[in-house]
Amino acid sequence: DVAGALHTGRSRNDMDHTIFKMVLRERANTWLTQANQLVATLISKATTERDTLIVAYTHGQPAQPTTFGHYLSAIIEVMLHDITRVQDARDLLNHCPMGAAAITTSGFPINREQVAQLLGFSQPKLNSYGCIASVDYITALYSALKLPMLHLGRVVQDLQFWSAFEVGQLYVPNSLVQISSIMPQKRNPVPIEHLRHLASISAGRCDAIVNTMHNTPFTDMNDSEGEVQQAGYAVFESSGRVLELLSAVLALSTVNEDRVAATTQAACITITELADTLVRQESLSFRQAHDIAAATARDVIERQVPLQEGFDRFVEAFKRTLHRQPSMSKTEFSHVVSARFFVSTRDRPGGPAPVALDHALSTYAAELSVIQERLEASLNRQRDAETMLARAFTTLERS
Amino acid sequence: DVAGALHTGRSRNDMDHTIFKMVLRERANTWLTQANQLVATLISKATTERDTLIVAYTHGQPAQPTTFGHYLSAIIEVMLHDITRVQDARDLLNHCPMGAAAITTSGFPINREQVAQLLGFSQPKLNSYGCIASVDYITALYSALKLPMLHLGRVVQDLQFWSAFEVGQLYVPNSLVQISSIMPQKRNPVPIEHLRHLASISAGRCDAIVNTMHNTPFTDMNDSEGEVQQAGYAVFESSGRVLELLSAVLALSTVNEDRVAATTQAACITITELADTLVRQESLSFRQAHDIAAATARDVIERQVPLQEGFDRFVEAFKRTLHRQPSMSKTEFSHVVSARFFVSTRDRPGGPAPVALDHALSTYAAELSVIQERLEASLNRQRDAETMLARAFTTLERS
Amino acid sequence: DVAGALHTGRSRNDMDHTIFKMVLRERANTWLTQANQLVATLISKATTERDTLIVAYTHGQPAQPTTFGHYLSAIIEVMLHDITRVQDARDLLNHCPMGAAAITTSGFPINREQVAQLLGFSQPKLNSYGCIASVDYITALYSALKLPMLHLGRVVQDLQFWSAFEVGQLYVPNSLVQISSIMPQKRNPVPIEHLRHLASISAGRCDAIVNTMHNTPFTDMNDSEGEVQQAGYAVFESSGRVLELLSAVLALSTVNEDRVAATTQAACITITELADTLVRQESLSFRQAHDIAAATARDVIERQVPLQEGFDRFVEAFKRTLHRQPSMSKTEFSHVVSARFFVSTRDRPGGPAPVALDHALSTYAAELSVIQERLEASLNRQRDAETMLARAFTTLERS
Amino acid sequence: DVAGALHTGRSRNDMDHTIFKMVLRERANTWLTQANQLVATLISKATTERDTLIVAYTHGQPAQPTTFGHYLSAIIEVMLHDITRVQDARDLLNHCPMGAAAITTSGFPINREQVAQLLGFSQPKLNSYGCIASVDYITALYSALKLPMLHLGRVVQDLQFWSAFEVGQLYVPNSLVQISSIMPQKRNPVPIEHLRHLASISAGRCDAIVNTMHNTPFTDMNDSEGEVQQAGYAVFESSGRVLELLSAVLALSTVNEDRVAATTQAACITITELADTLVRQESLSFRQAHDIAAATARDVIERQVPLQEGFDRFVEAFKRTLHRQPSMSKTEFSHVVSARFFVSTRDRPGGPAPVALDHALSTYAAELSVIQERLEASLNRQRDAETMLARAFTTLERS
Repeated sequence: DVAGALHTGRSRNDMDHTIFKMVLRERANTWLTQANQLVATLISKATTERDTLIVAYTHGQPAQPTTFGHYLSAIIEVMLHDITRVQDARDLLNHCPMGAAAITTSGFPINREQVAQLLGFSQPKLNSYGCIASVDYITALYSALKLPMLHLGRVVQDLQFWSAFEVGQLYVPNSLVQISSIMPQKRNPVPIEHLRHLASISAGRCDAIVNTMHNTPFTDMNDSEGEVQQAGYAVFESSGRVLELLSAVLALSTVNEDRVAATTQAACITITELADTLVRQESLSFRQAHDIAAATARDVIERQVPLQEGFDRFVEAFKRTLHRQPSMSKTEFSHVVSARFFVSTRDRPGGPAPVALDHALSTYAAELSVIQERLEASLNRQRDAETMLARAFTTLERS
Repeated sequence: DVAGALHTGRSRNDMDHTIFKMVLRERANTWLTQANQLVATLISKATTERDTLIVAYTHGQPAQPTTFGHYLSAIIEVMLHDITRVQDARDLLNHCPMGAAAITTSGFPINREQVAQLLGFSQPKLNSYGCIASVDYITALYSALKLPMLHLGRVVQDLQFWSAFEVGQLYVPNSLVQISSIMPQKRNPVPIEHLRHLASISAGRCDAIVNTMHNTPFTDMNDSEGEVQQAGYAVFESSGRVLELLSAVLALSTVNEDRVAATTQAACITITELADTLVRQESLSFRQAHDIAAATARDVIERQVPLQEGFDRFVEAFKRTLHRQPSMSKTEFSHVVSARFFVSTRDRPGGPAPVALDHALSTYAAELSVIQERLEASLNRQRDAETMLARAFTTLERS
Repeated sequence: DVAGALHTGRSRNDMDHTIFKMVLRERANTWLTQANQLVATLISKATTERDTLIVAYTHGQPAQPTTFGHYLSAIIEVMLHDITRVQDARDLLNHCPMGAAAITTSGFPINREQVAQLLGFSQPKLNSYGCIASVDYITALYSALKLPMLHLGRVVQDLQFWSAFEVGQLYVPNSLVQISSIMPQKRNPVPIEHLRHLASISAGRCDAIVNTMHNTPFTDMNDSEGEVQQAGYAVFESSGRVLELLSAVLALSTVNEDRVAATTQAACITITELADTLVRQESLSFRQAHDIAAATARDVIERQVPLQEGFDRFVEAFKRTLHRQPSMSKTEFSHVVSARFFVSTRDRPGGPAPVALDHALSTYAAELSVIQERLEASLNRQRDAETMLARAFTTLERS
Repeated sequence: DVAGALHTGRSRNDMDHTIFKMVLRERANTWLTQANQLVATLISKATTERDTLIVAYTHGQPAQPTTFGHYLSAIIEVMLHDITRVQDARDLLNHCPMGAAAITTSGFPINREQVAQLLGFSQPKLNSYGCIASVDYITALYSALKLPMLHLGRVVQDLQFWSAFEVGQLYVPNSLVQISSIMPQKRNPVPIEHLRHLASISAGRCDAIVNTMHNTPFTDMNDSEGEVQQAGYAVFESSGRVLELLSAVLALSTVNEDRVAATTQAACITITELADTLVRQESLSFRQAHDIAAATARDVIERQVPLQEGFDRFVEAFKRTLHRQPSMSKTEFSHVVSARFFVSTRDRPGGPAPVALDHALSTYAAELSVIQERLEASLNRQRDAETMLARAFTTLERS
């Protein structure tokens, strides 16, 4: 019977870690709900911004056009892995220590399975010494929680850069910036700054908990108990704010299309597609196509002509190399070097072309559903256990 | 065709990360082989030491008897989780970046599926910007590799303590200790010390790699490339040594049964079983049984009598509390307070009694098989890919 | 005039960092007071325990006798360096950012010297961009605060080991241990455990603050402001508790001389002095003396005779090697191999002999005085500034 | 005599740490030489760029004009503190462990002072247990070495931003950038990227060494010896490269004055000086001056007029507020809102005006001299010791 089980197998040791796990799983559930919400926001935003052109950077420099939806999809993939990792770590919280007693279980016929079930765990944690000493449920959880803070912090670096005065690719609405009355151009994107230090502090707090276990003996010790558990809860507070604040910032921010177009032209970032098209349409070798495109780029930049108006320069370069007229018309040229064509032609799996992106987004939505169902199964088990436990107590009181 | 796919979708960006992943997966495979071998050693040692009594500690003090097999099983459970976590992280290495090209895939009809397959990956990594920028394959792997170093470092603390001169529970053979010619008692367990700092340095190196990504932009940058990749390889070198050295130390070390028996008696660590038995056999309340056991313990300790010879003290305490003779005989008493009885009566799932431990060990062996099969499936995929690739090149050369 | 200076040079930027420094210096002052108090306790305890023999360990094994006072003196030296380092870091808090205004000082004739003085700083911080951006006053302070937590944590490991049941070199009084009613031998030294995790968490919190600055731009950013400053205050809370709790534990704990004597004999840790004495008194070579001492040690350990009763074994070994009788008498032998003689003969600077230790302790006391005076000079400057500031305001109100 | 001192006080313990310190001090000397060289480069560059205008940022947005020399001076101040901290840490390497023997010094009349002197140390480290166990010479050194890597990494973030295509404030010459043949605008500032990850890895390596000591006992252990020492040397390798590479990058890079002027105008970053001048010259209240300046800024930005051509807008705003004509002429207005005037009027100590900056630079040069002399004193002591030691050996051989 339940009361007997609870009574005779009791010890502060297994009870402590059971309670620690029950408290942590509540916080983990909230975190997972917030993280899933962020991914839902990202998918929704990526869908809305499926066709919104942006400049994509490598080495901090403009490199190629893509779409905001494509960029956000890269983040979605990272987050789906991050959440799965936290869920895997959370699974260790489903292993119930009760019945381990002080170390070695009990000489009384306690039913560890039943106790675990009534407390909403999926199963007893097997080895009883491990129940009170292994503490890997702590290290695994905080280790897993660190990574999304690190990864989202990298996105925050992009948002900070994109919203810099000189770059201006991202427009953060007035409601989210600190404005100077005397310098109307100075728009400090304060929430983005807050995201960075909140993510950093959260990551640092995860490390502090994990490293507290370093070089402690593998035996039940206070290093994993009350005060350290308490210190860990700050992680959920600050990282939960990161998840919610980033959702808000991303939902409200928009791309400044004029700035994107200006940088696209000025940095000639579609020029490689000119070369690619020459290979495909004019049957040139890669070497020839590259030479013509490079000459065109050098020329328009020198003369400060936008690439899309550089048809004459292209024809000249083509003729210089091949001693003939290209078959490409002025209209075709303008189309070929447009960011829109660049993006639409990149339709391989994982590319930014609408067909590729639509497919990717539906994949992510399906993966999020699986993650969400996994969370709900946990929540349901806990809810069912509460009902069972209440019923068991009522039965007990009446007996 | 393959050559075209490799050619037209080429870029240093996706090629770099493809190669980084291929190099890392070799190291991860070796690490997993070493880790599986350690678990196999632990299971074998735990089986051999199934019945070997040891003193189990809480708060650094002798607390209860258990068996060496039971202790090692707690470590096995941790390691099984640790390896699974590394395998999950290694799965990100199975996602092939090839075809992402510079950022956005290619306008040429490259076949990302086929390239992935020929290079031994399980699938292409979907989002092409993520292929060159997300770097979570690095953070996830080194983050996962840190935890076993932290966890095994806790075992090492126990081994260090157990092999201390005054404790002596663990005997490390002469081949593994540094001996002083003038102080024959001074046996420095050098490999245990080495395990500690190797594990610490390994964990620190993991942190160094993970934290290098902190506050870098989410775009292709050198922070995740050549030099940082190189720096990471030191993790495999030092943590691989931890896995192999710990296997060797555990395989060769033995429990000093005399010291275990002496501490068991001196610290009265079986006394709670006397109370439990009184509840079960003499139908006492927990309160009464506890009082009698506590009085017995106080008495034998004061008189420096080993607990097993404390029957008279027990009878006196029993009579003082209950004003009657216990039904327990002197022989029964001696049996009840023996470490062997203590252990054998703790037969709940996860307990140290032989039946419980045998069941646990067979569970672990089955789990290790699954882990091993997962590793072998990876190795086979790589091997098959090599064959396919060689064949494809041959076909290409002939065409 | 002051008001003008405050008014026309004002900006949130320099005011923020000025206030952060003023808040931090209060906390740093408290911390230094606590740390100085710990060193005073250590010096006082070391003086009391100047002659109390203990076993000193290397590689976790008994190695030589020394005194508790000598051991504590090693800690004192570390702490004196640690405090000096924190004081040096605290000096950066004495550089006043006021007058830097937003970034570049002001076009108004503000008097930075005077403002600094009135706010209790030693001087203005020179470069005005640095005033609001360099944030090295934060990194330097928390970096310095980490080290004593790490170092004291190493002492805590010793205390934990020394108070283990089997070792028992340190007796922690009942008021500081958690006692089991049923296992009277089980004395959990809970404050020692608390010291460990408090020190670890404190060190981790220092890292979290320092690492939050990693890869942030060198410009005024929120990463060093409000919330991060707040998060840092937790370091003072937990590390201050370490300093006070360790003072209390050390003041109240005592050495168990019987256990020390038993281990000294059992581990033969004075045997090297026998060899040294043979070199000095019998004019043997080091090689000969070593051989005789080693043979004596092997013999007494094999026969389980305490070394001090091993005169006959020594004579035999001496004769075996040199074919003559030693001049050393039985009484002399017993004296030579005693821990007391071992210690008293090690009178080189820094050694445990009373004359050496007395000299060291008076050196430390003098160093502590210098440290304490440096702290008091800071406190006095702040107190004087408060008076000046109050007077300046009064003058201002009347004008 | 020397030989006797070395012989009779010998032990692997004190010899090991003596050698570790001698090896570390060589590396520290080299590091300090490199760091001093960087500061010399910074002072020289700041002198050259005393009058070169740049845009200064807060919150990642253009905030005020200043000069490159002023910016570099902020870095110089940080570096002077950083180097002093490393020198203070290096001082612990000057305390010689020799004579501590195994733990407790020796019963032989060794002369610790003389041995220390002959080996180039400034003095013996006093407490002999501390000589082999305190290891704070390691933690203090690597802790101090971390901070400049963290601080310079913040400068690197600025350099990366300044050299972004859209910002272009810093011109990194072709010899230091990776150029794309097809995208002539794409100039990847690879050395800046390398600086970031080299600094990060260096910082991480420092942490790895420091944290290896965490929760180790305070007794001579392998955690601070051979392999860990070896691992630490990588810090000097990578951080030394940071110091040299940053010197090279800063020496060769230049400010793009056109881009600075364009951003200065576009972001209206001199507008606060207009308000300040109105207070000083037209005797307006701060409130009135602010309102007029703000209205002017709003107006010119709306009409996309450069601020310097906004005199008419200013007159209008002035009249709207004060119902009179300003006394400021068009020429005066243009002067007042120029970046050059903004900078020249900020001549408070620590400001960017030439007089203030010249004074600051001469202060830094004097501080660097002190630092350099301190290093040279160390080098001379080592050199003298080598001579003395050689002489002592010669004397010994002849005797």
